[in-house]
Amino acid sequence: MSTSSSATTAIETTRIEADPNVPLIRLTRDFVATPEQLFRAHTDPDLFARWVGPDGMVTTIEHWEASNGGSWRYVARRDGLDFRFRGCFHDVRPNRIVQTFSFEGEPDHVALETIWFEDLGAGRARLHAQSLVDSFDGRDAWLRSGMETGINEGYAKLAALVSSGTV
Amino acid sequence: MSTSSSATTAIETTRIEADPNVPLIRLTRDFVATPEQLFRAHTDPDLFARWVGPDGMVTTIEHWEASNGGSWRYVARRDGLDFRFRGCFHDVRPNRIVQTFSFEGEPDHVALETIWFEDLGAGRARLHAQSLVDSFDGRDAWLRSGMETGINEGYAKLAALVSSGTV
Repeated sequence: MSTSSSATTAIETTRIEADPNVPLIRLTRDFVATPEQLFRAHTDPDLFARWVGPDGMVTTIEHWEASNGGSWRYVARRDGLDFRFRGCFHDVRPNRIVQTFSFEGEPDHVALETIWFEDLGAGRARLHAQSLVDSFDGRDAWLRSGMETGINEGYAKLAALVSSGTV
Repeated sequence: MSTSSSATTAIETTRIEADPNVPLIRLTRDFVATPEQLFRAHTDPDLFARWVGPDGMVTTIEHWEASNGGSWRYVARRDGLDFRFRGCFHDVRPNRIVQTFSFEGEPDHVALETIWFEDLGAGRARLHAQSLVDSFDGRDAWLRSGMETGINEGYAKLAALVSSGTV
């Protein structure tokens, strides 16, 4: 691994990597935040709804139980269109979240997501997220869908929530 | 795919296949049972505890909620040793179950399992199960673990439960 934990150049635009060997996408993004703040932003439903997704998308949490064996469901609305997503939480530990994820419009496509927070020191942390699916076709279709806009706009909102003291 | 749904030779010893391209294991096993019976045997906790695992292993369900967003946990005991497993149910439909799976002794290794039941007609059904993990090393370690004994002994118990009229 060439990634140094003490990297001097912060990753402020999400690094999105397609694994060459496994149908997996890896996201990496640095924040001026502690791992605890990032964990809260991913497990508190009110905070999560304020940052997830692209600008202009309004997220309403319909169900949220961030604990081992819990589950979640939310609806994202833009331009009068609703998009529903849901999953279950396999593991919710302070530094590691493992959950399933699906868009209800494509119920047979389920991803296994793992999110963890690396302490970079000096009040900074690196978010790592990986999303695993069962085929390269499915993975590559997702990469082509324009996901990076929503991811980068979402993480920018998360960074702003932290810098404003909300998280 | 060379597998015919009207195969004349029943698959009574589980076919265990390692996907060549994706870190996935596929199981295939035929039963003299309807898809509905196989679904019940996978979702009713009392039935599930009676067949899962190798001979001599006693399974006790500690938690079981077989519905979208539910979860499960059980302990398997043999020779005074306890092995705990848990997961969450992403999807529980009559013909499709999607769930996470982990052995609590290795909490960082989480698999995404998909199980479905193909109607072969004439009171027979084919069980398909796939288990996806995020590395070939993890997948291959599991294949080397002697899993096939527990799988075949478990499915033989399931077949016996159906033929005795219990399911």
